[in-house]
Amino acid sequence: MNRSINHTHDPNLRSWVESANQTKTDFPIQNLPFGIFRPRNTIEKPHIGIAIGEQILDLFVCREVGLLQGLPERLQEVCLESNLNELMALGNWATSALRDRLSLLLRLNGSNPPLDQKILLPMTSAELLLPAQIGDYTDFYASIFHATNVGKLFRPDHPLLPNYKYVPIAYHGRASSIIVSGTTIKRPQGQQKSPEESTPIFAPSQLLDYEMEVGFFVGSGNKLGQPITIDKAEEHIFGLCLLNDWSARDIQAWEYQPLGPFLGKSFATTISPWVVTLEALAPFRCPAFSRPEGDPSPLSYLYSQLDHQLGGINLTVELLLSSAQMRAQKMKPLRLSRASFGQMYWTIAQMLTHHTSNGCNLRSGDLLASGTISGAEEGSQGSLLEITRLGSQPIELPTGEVRSFLADGDEVILHGYCEQKGSARIGFGKCRGMVSSRLTDQV
Amino acid sequence: MNRSINHTHDPNLRSWVESANQTKTDFPIQNLPFGIFRPRNTIEKPHIGIAIGEQILDLFVCREVGLLQGLPERLQEVCLESNLNELMALGNWATSALRDRLSLLLRLNGSNPPLDQKILLPMTSAELLLPAQIGDYTDFYASIFHATNVGKLFRPDHPLLPNYKYVPIAYHGRASSIIVSGTTIKRPQGQQKSPEESTPIFAPSQLLDYEMEVGFFVGSGNKLGQPITIDKAEEHIFGLCLLNDWSARDIQAWEYQPLGPFLGKSFATTISPWVVTLEALAPFRCPAFSRPEGDPSPLSYLYSQLDHQLGGINLTVELLLSSAQMRAQKMKPLRLSRASFGQMYWTIAQMLTHHTSNGCNLRSGDLLASGTISGAEEGSQGSLLEITRLGSQPIELPTGEVRSFLADGDEVILHGYCEQKGSARIGFGKCRGMVSSRLTDQV
Repeated sequence: MNRSINHTHDPNLRSWVESANQTKTDFPIQNLPFGIFRPRNTIEKPHIGIAIGEQILDLFVCREVGLLQGLPERLQEVCLESNLNELMALGNWATSALRDRLSLLLRLNGSNPPLDQKILLPMTSAELLLPAQIGDYTDFYASIFHATNVGKLFRPDHPLLPNYKYVPIAYHGRASSIIVSGTTIKRPQGQQKSPEESTPIFAPSQLLDYEMEVGFFVGSGNKLGQPITIDKAEEHIFGLCLLNDWSARDIQAWEYQPLGPFLGKSFATTISPWVVTLEALAPFRCPAFSRPEGDPSPLSYLYSQLDHQLGGINLTVELLLSSAQMRAQKMKPLRLSRASFGQMYWTIAQMLTHHTSNGCNLRSGDLLASGTISGAEEGSQGSLLEITRLGSQPIELPTGEVRSFLADGDEVILHGYCEQKGSARIGFGKCRGMVSSRLTDQV
Repeated sequence: MNRSINHTHDPNLRSWVESANQTKTDFPIQNLPFGIFRPRNTIEKPHIGIAIGEQILDLFVCREVGLLQGLPERLQEVCLESNLNELMALGNWATSALRDRLSLLLRLNGSNPPLDQKILLPMTSAELLLPAQIGDYTDFYASIFHATNVGKLFRPDHPLLPNYKYVPIAYHGRASSIIVSGTTIKRPQGQQKSPEESTPIFAPSQLLDYEMEVGFFVGSGNKLGQPITIDKAEEHIFGLCLLNDWSARDIQAWEYQPLGPFLGKSFATTISPWVVTLEALAPFRCPAFSRPEGDPSPLSYLYSQLDHQLGGINLTVELLLSSAQMRAQKMKPLRLSRASFGQMYWTIAQMLTHHTSNGCNLRSGDLLASGTISGAEEGSQGSLLEITRLGSQPIELPTGEVRSFLADGDEVILHGYCEQKGSARIGFGKCRGMVSSRLTDQV
């Protein structure tokens, strides 16, 4: 269902919301991503919204004024919620029915006047909130290029561990510290030990890094003890967002043996506010990563023909950095990373199926993430750890400043978009966060 | 506050609920642990209850009939909830005020007739549910004996890693698969690779194990970016429960490098239904574990004089096993493990403070656990992995059956209790789970 192309994808569609028709908009009428918002500087009840050009369509108001009439009653009800969990729980048939209606509502039709503009709020007047109440958050390690780059730094002779090509490796992350784009990142303190010292110190992290990732939200969940098979996996995925898995490399290096990352990651994880549905991404599906000759095939529980043929998503992710000096000098942010999500060793279906293969239950609104997205080429590494080789090869900014890791005042900005001939551009908006050593009200 | 002894601890107190006055009860009037229940075989709204002898005091009804009058209005309101999160969020002053009132209500007083028994339900008529909505679950590794035992199996020459005596090691666990005592454990499937084979298989786990642990719930939380200092840590701990961190050693061994435990643990974690407050445990506080000469002192953010002197809890935990054959022959469960929670290398305050030291926010109802509790003596190892030395030294059951790891039909039962001269016995009830390869309705 998710991978079939329907009328909502028609590249010729135009909206009466004019900003949605600009060539470079992230949010044309073919996208219709879901988010949660409220008018800026208020404490009003948050509403579900759809990004359309530079506006937000308010689904609460749409329901109140009868624009959702005829849709199933339960589907109309969940549009009154203050997070996406209940909508996600209904499953992808519901999302699809709702997008269908919204596409019709927003469509430019010569004979119809535009709808009452009270259903719209300019995005600049809105505060965007976390899209869902996230029960559990799991972070994978699905880029073989990232795993190899990191492995090389520590084990030049055998960078990849023996399990990598069989197991979609992952760890449980911290759900409470997932924050929405725009929230300041407070530089964490923690234990760190340099190789020259015999004992650790407790101090602010000096090796603060980003990780460029894509997250995906669970739609309808599964019961404990009932795995989701690979051919059903995408029916349980609501949509995708951008994610920055901030990482304190010094804290991480000292703490991570033998149980994996903990405080080196749990101080903050930033996600973009708009969730792009799998349906919107249908035109950009591509074959799963082509495993090099000699690599083993996935075990059968991780393989289906459809996933092999169309399990990938041809999505470009980019990461830019802007230092305080760069902003003062009105310089553009500098791009540090650009990679393709289609180059992941494991598909989103494989990650989700693996996650439930032991019977583990996923709940609507749970978040899974890809792990750092890196490619094979220079410029495609998704973390400073990789780019600067553990800090040994600092990069230079246009101001002449150098960076091994992030400095206070640095802003990190993720973009994501799908572009191809014959399809409308589908964008993810931005996922941004600025590093500070002071606690701000925003945090 | 939590560590001072008040009138609710008086060992001479008796209740008009007669079963609460038996010598070996887990739930005398000095305990008053909190839980969530509803009448068995109904779908009624769950209520907050207090275990008293073999009965449950229904706080919803207590509030409805006016027995909580005079307590702060907000405190009375949270007694109407269907989980403990809101009560926990009020902080320990609230729990203390409520226990004070409940102690008076349940107290035997020669001149007063017992209260209307409608506020009580026999425990045998109740279904006990999870005590809280658990946002995040974190599992520590705080027993140095356990860490050493496990380390010896893999690295006989240097069993303890260099960070162990500095860092309260932990990993994020899975919150969705935390289940209450009595729920059947479905044997998980997963990837496993024996040393003799070159490729893994996907099959039911053959090395299913338990881990004997204590969990503790967060009361009032902290904001992101605002660590909780060691001297304030216990103000943020609501109370303790028993916990079984079921572990599939074959899945775990193959998957855990480099990011730690994932599917080897996330299929199920069982907790006991009654949460014993820190206040009830005040008479059993003891010095923190005495570090052997030569061990480093904790870094200063993990040290306070009070925690050093009274950070431990003199709590005995036991684990028993009952096989299907043993039950058929009406044999008593066999005790496999008994250890003291007072022998942990890190205190609960140190674990909580470390967790927030990077700014990570804890929310009311979050669960932290100790990791496997093992002691130095034979018989005190808290997992089969340790007892059978990776399965190489199987144990014999009274039926003549042998076990390297758990078999279908095995029931694992945890107990916990505090006992000492001059104090009433404080028990934790039971935390039980039976292993099955079939999915039951219960799961």
